[in-house]
Amino acid sequence: MSQPLRYDTVSFLSDYGSTDEFVGIVKSVIRSICPEAAVIDITHDVAPHDVRSGSLTLARSAQYLCAGVVLAVVDPGVGTARRAVAVEVGNGQSVLLGPDNGLLASAVAMVGGATRGVELTNPDYHLPAPGPTFAGRDIFAPVAAHLCLGVELSEFGPALDLNSLRPSLLPLSRLEEAELHAEVLWVDRFGNAQLNLGPEEIDHFGERVELLLGGSIRTAQRVVAYSDLRIGQIGLVVDSYGLVSLAADRASVAEELQLSPGDAVILRAVADDDASTGASVAVSLNPTRRAP
Amino acid sequence: MSQPLRYDTVSFLSDYGSTDEFVGIVKSVIRSICPEAAVIDITHDVAPHDVRSGSLTLARSAQYLCAGVVLAVVDPGVGTARRAVAVEVGNGQSVLLGPDNGLLASAVAMVGGATRGVELTNPDYHLPAPGPTFAGRDIFAPVAAHLCLGVELSEFGPALDLNSLRPSLLPLSRLEEAELHAEVLWVDRFGNAQLNLGPEEIDHFGERVELLLGGSIRTAQRVVAYSDLRIGQIGLVVDSYGLVSLAADRASVAEELQLSPGDAVILRAVADDDASTGASVAVSLNPTRRAP
Amino acid sequence: MSQPLRYDTVSFLSDYGSTDEFVGIVKSVIRSICPEAAVIDITHDVAPHDVRSGSLTLARSAQYLCAGVVLAVVDPGVGTARRAVAVEVGNGQSVLLGPDNGLLASAVAMVGGATRGVELTNPDYHLPAPGPTFAGRDIFAPVAAHLCLGVELSEFGPALDLNSLRPSLLPLSRLEEAELHAEVLWVDRFGNAQLNLGPEEIDHFGERVELLLGGSIRTAQRVVAYSDLRIGQIGLVVDSYGLVSLAADRASVAEELQLSPGDAVILRAVADDDASTGASVAVSLNPTRRAP
Repeated sequence: MSQPLRYDTVSFLSDYGSTDEFVGIVKSVIRSICPEAAVIDITHDVAPHDVRSGSLTLARSAQYLCAGVVLAVVDPGVGTARRAVAVEVGNGQSVLLGPDNGLLASAVAMVGGATRGVELTNPDYHLPAPGPTFAGRDIFAPVAAHLCLGVELSEFGPALDLNSLRPSLLPLSRLEEAELHAEVLWVDRFGNAQLNLGPEEIDHFGERVELLLGGSIRTAQRVVAYSDLRIGQIGLVVDSYGLVSLAADRASVAEELQLSPGDAVILRAVADDDASTGASVAVSLNPTRRAP
Repeated sequence: MSQPLRYDTVSFLSDYGSTDEFVGIVKSVIRSICPEAAVIDITHDVAPHDVRSGSLTLARSAQYLCAGVVLAVVDPGVGTARRAVAVEVGNGQSVLLGPDNGLLASAVAMVGGATRGVELTNPDYHLPAPGPTFAGRDIFAPVAAHLCLGVELSEFGPALDLNSLRPSLLPLSRLEEAELHAEVLWVDRFGNAQLNLGPEEIDHFGERVELLLGGSIRTAQRVVAYSDLRIGQIGLVVDSYGLVSLAADRASVAEELQLSPGDAVILRAVADDDASTGASVAVSLNPTRRAP
Repeated sequence: MSQPLRYDTVSFLSDYGSTDEFVGIVKSVIRSICPEAAVIDITHDVAPHDVRSGSLTLARSAQYLCAGVVLAVVDPGVGTARRAVAVEVGNGQSVLLGPDNGLLASAVAMVGGATRGVELTNPDYHLPAPGPTFAGRDIFAPVAAHLCLGVELSEFGPALDLNSLRPSLLPLSRLEEAELHAEVLWVDRFGNAQLNLGPEEIDHFGERVELLLGGSIRTAQRVVAYSDLRIGQIGLVVDSYGLVSLAADRASVAEELQLSPGDAVILRAVADDDASTGASVAVSLNPTRRAP
C-alpha cells in the first residue's frame, strides 16, 4: 500500500525495564505514525542509567541488527542540555538515535563509523510533552517513525560535527611485565564473564592461565566448549562474540568468583609446571564428566 | 489480502508476568484467528492481582495507544461471576476488553468515556476451556481477534448499562488547614514517586516544600529536571505525564524515603524562611554538580 | 509481495532471559533473512539450563501455537556433540527446532508425533560463528528463517531416525496402597502448583483430600474456582490446562506450602469424616468471603 518505507525496522534498546509502560508507549507512538515499521527489542533491562553497559550491549549487537533505525535510550541526563542526536552510518544504510552521552559511539564504530549526523532540535517532529523527562516518547519515537517514512535526516535539525560526538569509554587491556591486565566487560545471564581480550592476547600463556582477582589466585583452563570443563573448574573460552570469557560448565563463574562488570582481572603464566601437568592428567581421566 | 481489518492493533496489558507462557499463548490465539493484527505489549508486570496499579498504568498509557483494541487482564475474580466486558470509546474508534472490576474505567474516562458496552457471554467467540481460570486465552483473546476482523460489538453479548460498569477508585488529594494530603500513585523503575497532584496544586508553596512522610519531615525543592538537584536533595518535578513526582538525580527517591504506591504524603509550606535562603545559596554554589 | 511464505510464524521459547541481547539478536537474524515472518515469544524466562521446565512449558503451549516454526533453545550442552535438530509434525504443518536433549519431545507428542526429522548440519544455512556457544543465533535462527522462506527440510541436513530422538522424562503418578504419589510440574506466577494428575485420578477421594508434603499433613478442598476458597484454605482445582493444581484464593499456595517444581505430593482420603463435615459447614456459612 501507499509509499514503500525508507526503513522498515526499528531496533530498540533502553534501560526502561519491563515493569512500567515506557517501552509499550514508545512502540505505540512509533506505530501511530508509521504502522508498517516493525520494532525489534534488543533489551530493555540495561541497568538504570548505566550508559557503559548499554553501550557495550549495543556494540555486541550491532553487526547482527537489521538495516534501519536503531533507537537507544539510556539517558541519565534527560532534561538537561545533553544533545539528542541521529547518527547515520553506511551512507544511510542505518541511522542510530539516542542521547549524545557515549551510548552510541561503540556501535557506530562497529559498523564502519558515522557518515552524517544531526541534532534532533526540530520540534515539528516531536510530541508536545507535559514534562521534560520522557525523551523516548516525545523525541526519539516520533523521529524514528518519521525516518522510516522517509523524512530526510536534515529535516530533524542542524548537522553535527561528527568529531564532537561523545566517545564511548572502553577499557583497553595492557601488558605489564608479563602480567596481562584485563577487565570484565559483561556478565551474562548464565554467569559467564566476558573480558576485554581477544584470544590472540592469551595464546602465549598456553593451556593453563593463572588469574589474579581481588586478593585471590585461581587457575583457568583454555577450552573450546563449556562442557570440556570438569565440575568446579574455571575455563577460558572464546565466546560467541569472539572475545575471551571466563566460564564454568552449567554454573555461574561470576558467582563463584564474585565478578561484576568493571572488575579487574590479571592473567599470567602458571608458575608451577608440575601442577599444570597434574591437572591435565586429571582432565583426561574424566573426559565426559558433567555437572548434574 | 482479503478484507481490510476493522482494527489492526491490540494493545495488551496484564499481570501475567514473563516467566510463564501466558502472554505468548494469548498472542498465539489472536494470531491464529487474525494473523494481520499486531499486538503491542504495554506491560505484563503489573503486580499479581493489583487492579489499582493496572488501572493507573492503563490510564497513563491511554492517550498514547493506537486506535484499536485494548486488552487488559488483571483479574483476581477470574472464574467467579464478575463480568467480562467490552467497552467502546469514541463511537468505535477503540474497544477496551477486560474484567469489569475497575481496571478499565480510568482509561475509558481518559479517552472521552464509553459510547457502548457489551458483556462477553456469547460462547461462539470463546475457546472451549479445560478449566475456568484463563480468561485471557479463552475469552479475551478470541474476542479481540474477532473485533479486529470486523465482527460487530453486539455479536459478543448483550448490551451493558454503562452506569453499571465498576468505577476505578482513584484517590483525590485534599487541602486541610494549609496541609495538602496526597498519595503515591506509582513508583517507576528509576524510583520516582508520582503523586496524585497537578503542578497547580503546589504552586502556592513556592520553591521549597515541606514533606511529612510517616513520622519524618523532609524538604523538597521544585525543579524542572532531575539534574537540577544536588546529591541527596529531594525534588518535586512535573513528570512526563504532567503530574507532580518526587525525584532525585540518578537515585531512587522511593528507596531513600521508603515510599510505595498508596503511601500518604503531606505537603506544606516550609516553616523556617532562613533555612530556605541558606539552601538556595548552597544550590547556586554547586550548579553543575551531579551524582557520580 | 514476492513469494508467499511457506511458514509465517516463528514461536520462540528459550532460557535466554531478557537482561542480555540474546533474544533480540535471534529475532534480528530471522528478520534479516525473512522480513515477513512474525516471531511470537512464548517465554524466555525458563530457568537457565532447565530442560525439564522448558519442555513442560512448550508442551503446555503446543496446542495453542500458530502453525509454523517453533524454535526452542534450552541448551546446556551447546558446543558439544549434542545434535541440533528439526522435527516436522503433521506432515509439514509445523517444524520444531532445538537441541536434541528432550526439550522438544513432549510438545511433539502433544501435537500428534513427528513425521520427519533432520539433523541441522548443513553449514550453508548457518551463520559463520566466532565461538561455539550461541547456537540460537548461528544455527537455529537462520534455519528458522529459511524454513519460512520455503527451503526444503532435507536441505538442512541428513534425515534422522525418529526413534533416536531423546525423549522428555515426564514423571508419572502412581497409586500405592490408596496413596496417590504425585509431583509438582509447575509453579506459576500466581503461586499455583500444577500436579501431574488429571481430575479423574482424584475423583474417588471426594470433596476433601489429605496432602502429605515433606513432613507435614494438610487438607485440601476440591473447588471449581479460586474464589470458592476461604482465606487460608488450600484448594484442588482443574486448571486451565485440564490438570489438577493446588491453589489458594489470591495467595500463593506454593509459598504457603514451600512447594517447588519436582517436589513430591502424596494424596489420600481424609481419615476423619467428622472433621470433613465440620469444614463443609464452615464453608457454607461464608460462601462469599474473600481474601482482601
